[in-house]
Amino acid sequence: MGRASKREEIAQAALRQFQAKGFNATGVNDITTAAGVPKGSFYNHFSSKEESALEALNRYAAGLRFDMLTTPGRPPLERLRAHFEYLGRDTLDNGFAGGCLAGNFGAEMADHNEQIRSAVQRGFGRWAEHIQGVLTEAREAGELAGALDVADTALFILSAWEGALIAARADKSAAPVEAFFRLVFGVILR
Amino acid sequence: MGRASKREEIAQAALRQFQAKGFNATGVNDITTAAGVPKGSFYNHFSSKEESALEALNRYAAGLRFDMLTTPGRPPLERLRAHFEYLGRDTLDNGFAGGCLAGNFGAEMADHNEQIRSAVQRGFGRWAEHIQGVLTEAREAGELAGALDVADTALFILSAWEGALIAARADKSAAPVEAFFRLVFGVILR
Repeated sequence: MGRASKREEIAQAALRQFQAKGFNATGVNDITTAAGVPKGSFYNHFSSKEESALEALNRYAAGLRFDMLTTPGRPPLERLRAHFEYLGRDTLDNGFAGGCLAGNFGAEMADHNEQIRSAVQRGFGRWAEHIQGVLTEAREAGELAGALDVADTALFILSAWEGALIAARADKSAAPVEAFFRLVFGVILR
Repeated sequence: MGRASKREEIAQAALRQFQAKGFNATGVNDITTAAGVPKGSFYNHFSSKEESALEALNRYAAGLRFDMLTTPGRPPLERLRAHFEYLGRDTLDNGFAGGCLAGNFGAEMADHNEQIRSAVQRGFGRWAEHIQGVLTEAREAGELAGALDVADTALFILSAWEGALIAARADKSAAPVEAFFRLVFGVILR
């Protein structure tokens, strides 16, 4: 493997390991073993486990597919539903394991690592803005009840999503995710 | 300290350490240092860190004050709001740190430790039942819109609460918790 592709292998393995085990339970050794590279080579590409965790968060965020929210062609609320259905599939297909890396890092690390906390904060912020954008479009299209505050509602939907994934993993069932879809699309955004 | 009080000191220190740091970042050594007891004495009272984590979860659950939900004297939805206001105070007064031990253990450990996962599942289950009970009372008192499924709604509110605490810790702000109160009590349960 060349230098660039080795970095890529390590970064991909780091994302998978952090998603599977969280920050504290993942060692640099786990990452290099999963990547099939010598342990020492990690530090040719990343200065620390934390740096690889920040890159994993960026890669995870890129996979959130915000383009599904912004690409026209479908009614706004249909796009919002498709976005969460797409994201839920990972956890549901994975035996109710994994969840959202941003939520998991937030729960585990927000109080202990300022760089990870602020990366999670920025990620949630961008995500909530995208949801708010769709809700604003929905309002303009007459799909939304007038009284709903779109900024509040976007924040709340994102929190509810993060909590539903954690509850689904604890419950090993889709019930919390199904409740999310029924309440968000059947009650709040009806 | 006698044997019983030493066990109590260790159990209380374990709860505080797990709330502050999570499971993986807490060592038995952290717990005994915080309790002011020799490291070896931990194993006179607990067979493993995991056993002390399960007891910490039970103690945390006891502090959720389900009695606030079931004690009559106030309208059901007012009791529900007071319950979450009481629980939110910890995180808000604590510089937006700490959060919910059940949610934190769920996020960090549900995929990796079957005993912790199932303890979190039972905790969430009991909690959702209590919320459902209040919603049922609210419906009987005519406080709730007729169409709401109380089981679904209870699950959803609990997920939204867990997610809001994580988002508040990542954001170091009360905004996600405030959005929770406005959407739950101003929109869903209006």
